[in-house]
Amino acid sequence: MQLTSYAKYLTLSSFLIMILLAGCSFSSSTSAAKEFLVNNPKEYTNVLKNIKAGDSVILANGTWQNFEIVFKGKGAKNAPITLRAETPGKVILSGQSNLRLAGEYLIVSGLVFKNGYTPTGEVISFRRNKDDLAYHSRVTEVVIDNYSNPEKFEQDKWVVMYGKHNRFDHSNLVGKRNGGVTMAVRLNTEESQQNYHRIDHNYFGPRPILGSNGGETLRIGTSHYSLTDSFTTIENNYFDRCNGEVEIISNKSGKNNILNNVFFESRGTLTLRHGNGNVVEGNVFFGNGVDHTGGIRVINRDQIVRNNYMEGLTGYRFGSGFTVMNGVPNSTINRYHQVDNALIENNSLINVDHFHLAAGSDVERSAAPINSRIINNLIVNNKNTDGITIFDDISGIQFSGNVLPTGTKPSIKSGFSVEPVELKRAANGLLYPTSEALANKGATKNIQPISKDQAGVSWYAKSEPEVEFDSGKTTQVPSAEGAFFEAINNAQSGDVLILADGNYDISKVVKLTKTITIKAMNKGQTTLYPQRSTLFDIADFGNLKLVNLIIDAKQTPDSAGNTLIRTSRLPMQRNYRLELTGNEIKNLNVNHSFHMFDAGFRSFADHINFTGNTFTDVTGDILRLNKETDDLGIYNAEYVRLTGNVFNNIEGAVVKVYRGGTDESTFGPHVIMHKNRLNNVGKGKRNKSHAAVNLHGTQVTNLSENQFFDSAPIKIEHTVGEPITEITDNDFSKTPAPEILELTVSGPHTAKLKNNRIL
Amino acid sequence: MQLTSYAKYLTLSSFLIMILLAGCSFSSSTSAAKEFLVNNPKEYTNVLKNIKAGDSVILANGTWQNFEIVFKGKGAKNAPITLRAETPGKVILSGQSNLRLAGEYLIVSGLVFKNGYTPTGEVISFRRNKDDLAYHSRVTEVVIDNYSNPEKFEQDKWVVMYGKHNRFDHSNLVGKRNGGVTMAVRLNTEESQQNYHRIDHNYFGPRPILGSNGGETLRIGTSHYSLTDSFTTIENNYFDRCNGEVEIISNKSGKNNILNNVFFESRGTLTLRHGNGNVVEGNVFFGNGVDHTGGIRVINRDQIVRNNYMEGLTGYRFGSGFTVMNGVPNSTINRYHQVDNALIENNSLINVDHFHLAAGSDVERSAAPINSRIINNLIVNNKNTDGITIFDDISGIQFSGNVLPTGTKPSIKSGFSVEPVELKRAANGLLYPTSEALANKGATKNIQPISKDQAGVSWYAKSEPEVEFDSGKTTQVPSAEGAFFEAINNAQSGDVLILADGNYDISKVVKLTKTITIKAMNKGQTTLYPQRSTLFDIADFGNLKLVNLIIDAKQTPDSAGNTLIRTSRLPMQRNYRLELTGNEIKNLNVNHSFHMFDAGFRSFADHINFTGNTFTDVTGDILRLNKETDDLGIYNAEYVRLTGNVFNNIEGAVVKVYRGGTDESTFGPHVIMHKNRLNNVGKGKRNKSHAAVNLHGTQVTNLSENQFFDSAPIKIEHTVGEPITEITDNDFSKTPAPEILELTVSGPHTAKLKNNRIL
Repeated sequence: MQLTSYAKYLTLSSFLIMILLAGCSFSSSTSAAKEFLVNNPKEYTNVLKNIKAGDSVILANGTWQNFEIVFKGKGAKNAPITLRAETPGKVILSGQSNLRLAGEYLIVSGLVFKNGYTPTGEVISFRRNKDDLAYHSRVTEVVIDNYSNPEKFEQDKWVVMYGKHNRFDHSNLVGKRNGGVTMAVRLNTEESQQNYHRIDHNYFGPRPILGSNGGETLRIGTSHYSLTDSFTTIENNYFDRCNGEVEIISNKSGKNNILNNVFFESRGTLTLRHGNGNVVEGNVFFGNGVDHTGGIRVINRDQIVRNNYMEGLTGYRFGSGFTVMNGVPNSTINRYHQVDNALIENNSLINVDHFHLAAGSDVERSAAPINSRIINNLIVNNKNTDGITIFDDISGIQFSGNVLPTGTKPSIKSGFSVEPVELKRAANGLLYPTSEALANKGATKNIQPISKDQAGVSWYAKSEPEVEFDSGKTTQVPSAEGAFFEAINNAQSGDVLILADGNYDISKVVKLTKTITIKAMNKGQTTLYPQRSTLFDIADFGNLKLVNLIIDAKQTPDSAGNTLIRTSRLPMQRNYRLELTGNEIKNLNVNHSFHMFDAGFRSFADHINFTGNTFTDVTGDILRLNKETDDLGIYNAEYVRLTGNVFNNIEGAVVKVYRGGTDESTFGPHVIMHKNRLNNVGKGKRNKSHAAVNLHGTQVTNLSENQFFDSAPIKIEHTVGEPITEITDNDFSKTPAPEILELTVSGPHTAKLKNNRIL
Repeated sequence: MQLTSYAKYLTLSSFLIMILLAGCSFSSSTSAAKEFLVNNPKEYTNVLKNIKAGDSVILANGTWQNFEIVFKGKGAKNAPITLRAETPGKVILSGQSNLRLAGEYLIVSGLVFKNGYTPTGEVISFRRNKDDLAYHSRVTEVVIDNYSNPEKFEQDKWVVMYGKHNRFDHSNLVGKRNGGVTMAVRLNTEESQQNYHRIDHNYFGPRPILGSNGGETLRIGTSHYSLTDSFTTIENNYFDRCNGEVEIISNKSGKNNILNNVFFESRGTLTLRHGNGNVVEGNVFFGNGVDHTGGIRVINRDQIVRNNYMEGLTGYRFGSGFTVMNGVPNSTINRYHQVDNALIENNSLINVDHFHLAAGSDVERSAAPINSRIINNLIVNNKNTDGITIFDDISGIQFSGNVLPTGTKPSIKSGFSVEPVELKRAANGLLYPTSEALANKGATKNIQPISKDQAGVSWYAKSEPEVEFDSGKTTQVPSAEGAFFEAINNAQSGDVLILADGNYDISKVVKLTKTITIKAMNKGQTTLYPQRSTLFDIADFGNLKLVNLIIDAKQTPDSAGNTLIRTSRLPMQRNYRLELTGNEIKNLNVNHSFHMFDAGFRSFADHINFTGNTFTDVTGDILRLNKETDDLGIYNAEYVRLTGNVFNNIEGAVVKVYRGGTDESTFGPHVIMHKNRLNNVGKGKRNKSHAAVNLHGTQVTNLSENQFFDSAPIKIEHTVGEPITEITDNDFSKTPAPEILELTVSGPHTAKLKNNRIL
């Protein structure tokens, strides 16, 4: 143990007493201490020059624009220096503001960061610069709300802990939309190792799918220092739909305690990626059947995973409800270390679809788990399976005392008993066996999962991140000139605009910054005639649903490269949704390369759903989701679902998706095509891919019961991540067979083709 | 002649009388007429409801935001309806404003459009909609200044004339930066044909290089209606650096008069692209040796090109000082019609580099000019050449009476006399032979070229479009924290910042919206340590010059895809310039794909000049100018010049340029590499092109005296436009020979390779 001078004279218990004292002095400062109310950055700077232990600086209520706060001071164990809001929640840091702490015994509370983003790499930093860190300091009851860089792939972090003995608690971190982990503990110098930090009672609010690597919510350490112990405790935090990427918590150091946290409908897993001797205990995972919800992934030595509760998790492979990985023999520090001496006991896995053992086994990852125990776990799945898949030798794992319910065939012969299990939901919200005989199987009854209400601050609302389609009011829009734009301008997010029978000349680009549904009163009786190079431009906060319209593009300008719908050319920070149902779209052929939909560079769709539409005479592509040129793995859409559409005479492709790069940190893109008809698609001379469907690096592809007639072939390129590709029950008439290429893995391609008819 | 009811009862002379009368009524309205001063759009709309012939509507001085003016009314021949500014130049239309005229005998004057862009496809339109046009109407003394859509490739037009007998005059159209022709005359319905419009005394101010098709300044007609006569007169206009694309004026209809216009340092040509029987007379072209300055290009039947004066034009091929094209036999309406019965007489070509005859001759364009005469022209070139190149049979052209100066060897045997020619500049600014014997050769002395001052309105300044580097003041910047950003913030465009010896930690992205030079006080004694994923972000109005600095990227974040310099991720409307001289740039290798410079989608550099720099250890590319993914021919840089640089251990390429598409409407991109040294360049596994220099569709490439060592090869793909590629005197050591591919033209590649050493 290498403690620095700051920590040597402190025991852990004295530290806790100090925290209590600090808590007192925060509400009533010591007799000699002063309170300074400051109204602007200049006053703040002046006050700070003479600040003494025990003093408080109080930021006046209001909005502080572009305030880069440096909070440096030397408090004492029983006389900390405090920086707080005049009223918690009424001090707003906006624009290009941030906060750096340096010194010791500092307390910050009550601040809200919103309407802006940090000018540096961090919003709240427990250091002033690389030589000047914070110790024994606490940031409590702060809010960082959608304080994301508008350039989505300009990375930053919201809270970064350096130094030692610091605490970050009772705070809300909501809506990080740009690249970079939400919160990190750094161990990059000796002064920040064996840090005994505490991260507790925070609300990690919804983080949308980033569409690339770099969307973790909490990371402790980095691979470089991962063999160093951190002694960080992460407890009683609530992770609400933290969907950034495949890792929710990425543990990359040793001796951490991850206790009693709740993971609500969060895609991805708590991953013990690097570092040894960590304890994961008392955590609760509620998946509720949401796609890609996962649990815990175990890698490295001496990990204890005990008494965790998981329910309704759908994730598979590295995103499974439970994963025990294979390692790389003599692994470099940044690859996979072998699982050795893992203790996995008394966990409850209720309706967890996948439990993968020796996962990731391949030529490189050939070191199966050793000296490990999986005991007294309760695995109940209403699909009569234990969900276990075994990828390599598991003789290094001892199984005993695990329970499966009657009707389940155990995947592993010994160590699993099959017996009647009846579950009942207890007052704490978790399911437990009713039988006393099973009292010591699975998670204990005394888990008290923190509720969303209890986490974070009490004085700041936890709002929903998205407005659903059709959740607002309905407005009738006559076809008179101007009425259409007036209706768009006056609409609230969630509204539905009903267009009358007749013709609508659309002489301007419709810039969408709301969730809007536009619907024909009577199917096929309303025709839009766009007259600009674009009809709809989806910008931040824009989501579009079109229903039962005719869109005739014959009046658009006679120039190449028109689009019917596209995303903004401004950098988009927000994910968007696009739904087209029952529309007839035609004459996108006034000039060449007229695309139906064109995604902007770095734009990202949560989903694009086309159902029952007809597209006729298009000189470009239908869906262009291929704007990545730099192979960083930053793609344009998570789910593309095409069902029951007809595509006639499309010179380009129906869909082009490109997900480059070689990292395995995303679940998408997903492409699902079902029961579509394609006539003469993909054969235009400008369609360089010469494909009707062209997918590069999609992770999930399902093409079923489609009819291809006189069209270019499907072309799919597999890259990394063991993509799942199924092409079944399709007809290919006068159309070449699908072409599938493995770009990074040797051997035959792994797509499943079944029951396709080449006519 | 198909005149509509509006025009049938009018003779041309009665129309001219009407214009004179209209001019009178404008300053003093007829007795019964009323004047209405309006202060807001609502008042305007109310007044217009009851407007009578002879009345005037006066817009109050001030800024009118988002005002879509519809000026509809029925004036009379001697009682027009007027819409004017309270004070000319003091009524500003901004935001999303525009103007549509419909009816007859309307006059508009004194308005300024700036700080915004049109919400529709046109700023000033001589129609309300496709059924409601303007006749006998005049727009005079208006200004449209940088009123460009911020999305550069959202096309619109600034002034579009429909109807008949309309006039646009004495106006300024300056700084159109988005796609779409600046001004157009449309003949798309019978009501707009044989229109007798007049476009005169306008100032067409600087239009920057667009970097794609769609940057013409004035177009009359379209190919579709090009066999229809327009009878439009374009006279006494001043075209100041109208550099949008290869055509300055694109004439696409018949019987137009293009008279007495001045073309000042404008890249491109006056092109008789479609339509017959046009007269081009008395025009003056001053190239002043600027790249790609051209003159007149002749296509089609019965064209008269007479008495024009051209001086200092450098253009070649279709951009030559003078071009007579080959046609396509039985050409479709949108290809090249044969030159027949052209009269080209009494033009002066002074120091015009190229005069191309039967240009464009190929398998398709095989119909050489017939029944044509080239007579009494004066061709004087101080390089002792007549500049003539002959591409096909010219027996269909009769040459006579043309004069060349002593010392010139005529390219054509008959019809050219070689005699002593002494030139002297006359009071009108043009050069004429001193000898009386040559008085009837070349252009006449009574040309009076309009001056920049005379063109357009008198009450609006004609400002320069760009701020030059080093044109401002010089400031010393100490290396203390904050001083650097303070200096950047306080700098004016054109300023020079001198950095002291020492180290500068740069913890934020430097967003550049100015023309700035940053220079080390002493070469190699100042080191910048960028700490974000980008050091410089060049946004609109930003231009950057770095001199003699060391930039060490080792402190940048450990994530893939960093860049040292890039353009803004916001859509850029402005072209930019980047110059690096004498810098040492290193350690761009904290993670993969770290690029030195990354151009944004649709960004455009006027030039990028790197001279005498050293680049060492880079995991990405040096220059990424390849962001076009849609093959519309929209490229990222006009000139890339690399001279005397050293590139060591670059995993990507030194330069990647992509210019897609198949149109021939741009002069660039140009890539010039001279005396650079490349060691171990282009061999990284992520460099998909596997090239050290990768150029697709560049129009001019000149690679000379470079040394390649242990590097990937040069790869060049020729597309259209007869690109000029020269690769001479280079050494290739442990480096494969250059690869050149013709993508659209059959046969061997046309690059010139000479004196290269493969070692």
